Formats: sequence, C-alpha cells, structure tokens
Amino acid sequence: MPIGYSELPLLLPVPGIRLAAVAAGIRYRDRKDLVVIELAETSRGAAVFTRNAFCAAPVTIARQHLSLQPPRFMLINSGNANAGTGKRGLEDAQASCRMLAQRAGCAPEQVLPFSTGVIGEPLPVERIDAALDGALAQLSEHGWEQAAHAIMTTDTVAKGVSKTLQLGGHPIVVTGIAKGAGMIRPDMATMLAYLATDANVAPDALQSCLQQAVEVSFNRITVDGDTSTNDACVLVATGVSAAPLLDREHAGYRTFCDAVAEVCRRLAQLIVRDAEGATKFVSISVAGGRDAQECLQVAYTVAHSPLVKTALYASDPNWGRILAAVGRAGVADLDVDKVGIFLGDVCIVRDGGRAPDYREQDGQRVMNQDEIGIRIELGRGSASETVWTSDLSDEYVRINAEYRS
Amino acid sequence: MPIGYSELPLLLPVPGIRLAAVAAGIRYRDRKDLVVIELAETSRGAAVFTRNAFCAAPVTIARQHLSLQPPRFMLINSGNANAGTGKRGLEDAQASCRMLAQRAGCAPEQVLPFSTGVIGEPLPVERIDAALDGALAQLSEHGWEQAAHAIMTTDTVAKGVSKTLQLGGHPIVVTGIAKGAGMIRPDMATMLAYLATDANVAPDALQSCLQQAVEVSFNRITVDGDTSTNDACVLVATGVSAAPLLDREHAGYRTFCDAVAEVCRRLAQLIVRDAEGATKFVSISVAGGRDAQECLQVAYTVAHSPLVKTALYASDPNWGRILAAVGRAGVADLDVDKVGIFLGDVCIVRDGGRAPDYREQDGQRVMNQDEIGIRIELGRGSASETVWTSDLSDEYVRINAEYRS
Repeated sequence: MPIGYSELPLLLPVPGIRLAAVAAGIRYRDRKDLVVIELAETSRGAAVFTRNAFCAAPVTIARQHLSLQPPRFMLINSGNANAGTGKRGLEDAQASCRMLAQRAGCAPEQVLPFSTGVIGEPLPVERIDAALDGALAQLSEHGWEQAAHAIMTTDTVAKGVSKTLQLGGHPIVVTGIAKGAGMIRPDMATMLAYLATDANVAPDALQSCLQQAVEVSFNRITVDGDTSTNDACVLVATGVSAAPLLDREHAGYRTFCDAVAEVCRRLAQLIVRDAEGATKFVSISVAGGRDAQECLQVAYTVAHSPLVKTALYASDPNWGRILAAVGRAGVADLDVDKVGIFLGDVCIVRDGGRAPDYREQDGQRVMNQDEIGIRIELGRGSASETVWTSDLSDEYVRINAEYRS
Repeated sequence: MPIGYSELPLLLPVPGIRLAAVAAGIRYRDRKDLVVIELAETSRGAAVFTRNAFCAAPVTIARQHLSLQPPRFMLINSGNANAGTGKRGLEDAQASCRMLAQRAGCAPEQVLPFSTGVIGEPLPVERIDAALDGALAQLSEHGWEQAAHAIMTTDTVAKGVSKTLQLGGHPIVVTGIAKGAGMIRPDMATMLAYLATDANVAPDALQSCLQQAVEVSFNRITVDGDTSTNDACVLVATGVSAAPLLDREHAGYRTFCDAVAEVCRRLAQLIVRDAEGATKFVSISVAGGRDAQECLQVAYTVAHSPLVKTALYASDPNWGRILAAVGRAGVADLDVDKVGIFLGDVCIVRDGGRAPDYREQDGQRVMNQDEIGIRIELGRGSASETVWTSDLSDEYVRINAEYRS
C-alpha cells in the first residue's frame, strides 16, 4: 500500500481531451494495456523525455513527431517497453503510429507513441492493430480513470490529480495521471506522466512551463537512483477554454505554471509513495548551500545511500549513516563544524558531532513515523533544495530479484 | 561465507614487525578488539585515508602524526569508530597514543591510532589504557593471524595475504591484513588494511607505491557505493632486510610495487567476496572508452545500480538493466550502436539492441555461476578499467536494517 495515499481521487475531464483504454493482450490477458488519448485540433503539446542514451524507440519517435506537427493523438501501451530493440523497435513504433493515423484520418507524425514494460522484446504491433478500432469507438471525456489504470505496470495503485484555477474569469482545469514505482523499472519499466489542460497556451510558454514543473517535481524524486530508458512527461493544452491566450508575459502565466507544478509535484510524490517495497516517504531538505547544485548533490547522496535507506526501513535513528553520507557527498571545503542535521524537528548533529542535547528516544519518535523529514544545514550559503525518496526494504529486493516471467 | 575464499592462509612474519591482539572490552566481552603493532626503528610508513569530510578522529590524528615523525607503533581498536565525536574524539585519540607512547618510551607522535566500529559514541580510553600492558607483553612476529581476527567487525572471515619476492638476491616478504564487508559500515564501520614489508624503501617511493597500489585495488571495489569515515590503508617498510634501498629509479622498484599492488588487489577482492549478504563476486570491465574516467563512470554506474545488483542476486540474465545503466552513466555523445555488452563470454547486446544470436540459456549459464564477469565495450577509444562488486540480497537489507544493539 502506498504511504499516505489510498485510491485515485475524482479526475476532472479536460475539455478537448477524450480517452479510451482497452485490453490488447500485449503481455497479460484480461487487463487493459492500451490507451488512446485524442487531443482537440487546437491542442499544443510539450514534453520532457529521459536522458538515458539507450532511450526507447517510442521516445525517439515521440520526440521527432512532436517537433514536426501539433499532436492529435497519444498511443500508450504497458507490458512492453520497446527499448533495447534497435532498428526494428523504431519501425514498430512508427508502424503503430501509422495504424492509428490511418483510422483517425490524421498524419502519422500527429501521433505520439509511448511504451512501458519489459525491455528487449519486440513490440507486438499486430495486437495493437487489432485493438485500435475498439479503442477509438470508446473515446470519452471521462476516460481518465481507466487510462490511469491501464498505464500501470507493478504500481499498486492508479495515480492521478486534478486541479482547477481561474484565468481572466474563466475556469481552467489541469488533470494529470502518472505511473511508476521506481525511477527505472527496466523489467516493468518507466515513469510516465500525462497532463492536460483546456487552457490556451503559446507553444514555447507551454514547454517552458512543463520544464520548470518537471525540474521541481519528477526531477526531485528518486527511488533507486536509476533513470529509465522510457521516462516521459507530456503536457497538452487543448485551448478549448474561453480563457485568453497565455504567453510568458501574461499576468495569468505564473498562476497557470504554479498549478501545473503542483499537479506534477503531487504525481511525483505519489510515485515515491508507491515505490517498490517502500514503507517510508522521506523528504530530504538541504539548506545553507552555496548553490542549488551542491544542495542536490548532498540530498541525492543521502537519498541513494543504501545504508541510510535500510536504517529508515528499520526505523533506526542511526544518524551516523546520514553524517557519513553528507561527508562523502563531495562538497568542496565543507566545514563539518558548521553542519547541522535534523530528523524532523530533532537536532541530531551539531559542531561536527552528536548534538549534546540529543536523546535517542527523540530520534526514535521521528523514525517511527511513516513520513520522515531529514533536514541538513550546510552553513555556507543561502541555496536550498528538497528531494523525495523511499526506504530500502527486503521487499524491494524481492520484487526486483523475481524472474521476469 | 565469502565467495571463493574459506579461511586465512598462512601469513608470513615480516622481520621488524611484532603484533599483539588482546580483549579490551571496547564493545563486546570475550573477543579480541585491540591490536598493537610495533615497527622496527628503521621503519618508514605510507598511508592513504578516507576522503570523507566527516573523517574520524583517529584518521585526523594518524595523518598528522605520520607527517611529523617515522611511526613506531600502530594502535587499532574495533567496536568503536571514534567518528562523529567532535573535539572530544580528537582528545581521546591523542590520549590513547600518549598511553601507548609512555609505556613504550617513544613520542606520542610515533603512534598511529585507528578505530573501527559504531559511529558517534565516545571511545572508552580507560579500557584501552587497562589493556595496553598485556598487549605489549605479548608482542610477537607471529601475531598477524590474531591481529587479522581482532580488527574484524561484521566480517565473516579474517582476511590476509602474504607474498615473497627477491630484490638484488635478497628475499623480501610483503604481508597484509584487511577488514571490511562494505565500503562503509557506519554502524560497524570501515575498511582498514595494514601491509608490512622488510624491504628498505625511500619514504616518497613508499608513498607513491602505496598510492598506485590502492588506486588499482581498494579504489576499484564497491559494495554499496558508500565511503567510510574511517577508511585507512597503511604500508610499513621496516628496512630490516639486507636488500638495497629502493628509490623510484631502482631497477627493483617496479617489482616491489607489483608485489604490493598484488597484495592490495587480493585483499580488496577479499572484502568484496565477504561483502554483506553477498552471493556473487562480480567483475565489471569497461573497454573502448576515451579515457579511464569515463570507463570508471560506466563501471560504477552498473556496479551501483540496485536493479543490476538484484538481478545478479536472482541469477537473472536481465540484460536490459545493464543496458539501461550504461545508458544513464552520463557518457557524452555515446553512440549506442557501437556499444557491446557481454556476460562472461556471451554477447548480449550489439548494435543498440539484443544480439541477434543471443539465447537466454547462454546468459543463464553465466548467471548461475558464483563469480560473474560483465564486460562492456564502448567502441570509442582505447582506455579500459575494471571494478569489483557484489550483488544485493535481502540478507544485505537484513544485516543493515538490524538495530545497532
């Protein structure tokens, strides 16, 4: 069960967006594994993709298509990542776009393909072909919930968030869904997120809005430090709303960006809350750094330390492990005498060693909680950053050591 | 049980070195936890220490002492790391040096202190004081085996290697012992290694020899990617042998350095073979890189990936995880079509995807072994590097999630 999240909340339809999810039998029988999302003709799309050099075929094709024409459809399958599939993978991704485009009467370049699942196996395009008629017949504004379920792989719950705001007196909705229970799941691979709004946003403003939002959300979470071959996050603005066009100078742009960032942050945290084998949701804040980069360096070193993660799993206030991780984070000329470390509101390290007034029972009280905050003060500047992570349990090992079959 | 190693081999005495191990009750009763090593007056020492900014008090003091005078004694305790102990920790380390120096009739600066064990608890110097007379009375050339046992924390076996060589017609011995079952054990902390030889080596040549040896041995292993607060490796040359003085220009210097490097490599691999919860000993070789740095970057990214490590534990030839780790290693302009990945002698990835002739049963055959070689060819240069690591098992999580008590 995810930490602090039990089920999908009500997802608001986004004017201009219709969705359908069907069972194509990509990998498993009797589960929905193919999603078609139709975007109104006025839509503009922005996307952020994985930086993994071995990016999956659909990532290459989606990036290319998005640069050519405004998108009309997104085609998403779970159960197969179409990654590590070489030239054939690219042909398969293109073929699936063509199959949808032909039926829908648009150009293949107006279809963005996405895949998530096992790496290295050929995409069964004929099954996608066979399922498309059914999917197109079922398109509905109310398909968000089904889509959120169909893109899951080993996620234990479907993940989604809706938010409304006012722009120039007009109501606007932002709805997003995401999947992922690790930064990478090369077996059941990938973090994917899809957001849509009926706002009318200039293309460059839309891309910039998404990049900023991803930077403070999906780029601030880590489960196991791995980066997927298939990661993608897409934001679509259908422009169907009567609200005025937003460009970067518009007074409402900041409000809109804040709403998108909030939806992204919430979805990103849901991924961590549902991380493989997780029993704790942990936020790691680093303040007092010279710049954001060194704050992140310290935060990720702590977040990735298997020793810190296993102590979190054990609810063990083993602060020596946090101190050791901070010390090896590679911050140049770190003055350890100025470093402070806090577990929740409890100061555990001060002046290069254990805080004189620290009592084990105070640390224990914080560690017993499901949601834990670790705060590190570097004492050398004014930059600060926060990342979110989970603990490392034997359940994580079990999940990832299981055979792929 | 360590992989491919069952018990301590015969350790050869080193002329000029006497050792003793006693039970001081530092943390546990009835086990030897205090080692005194006496070095002949003619000895020269070289050392390499942890780069962790939160280095332990004994690391600070040992580094300082070594820079002041040739060492006459090493004083090592297990059970307590004397790390994260602030100013008091430094005073305690100095006090323990004084206690030994007074009894032995040398300067306190001629004693090098080392500690390994729990972080953040004060060093019980009065127990060390009480145990020193007994230790000094037991000093013997044949104390290596006892010392190898006494420096252990959660190691499952004592680790040591001896090697002989000829220098100018004179026999020379190099003996080394080490402890550690993770790059860091902030709970039961630290990798420590002590090597001694009766060769006569000029101080700068000795330091240079050790640095080169550590670079290709202890700096090429990783269990969990953490770096201890207490890591230290010391090489002592007693100069008792009748062999000629070695400086960097001497014809025998290379031979001597090779022997030291071989002892270090063997000890380093023993640490990985005895890694916490390890069931596999894995060597990861990266060739065809533009420089050593990018080869190491790829090798460590693969070695640290929890997903690769859990697949190794499961004996699962899940090559997609290796491919994904290579892809996210951050190598600039990596041409994935030129990357080859091999499991043992089996080619699994070629031309950006699964090798056409790869069969799962071939990969399975390699993964079933206790000792596994992963070879990655980057196809962009002539640099190559090798690192050694272990797998990630639920036993690792169990060991590290256990309470400190």
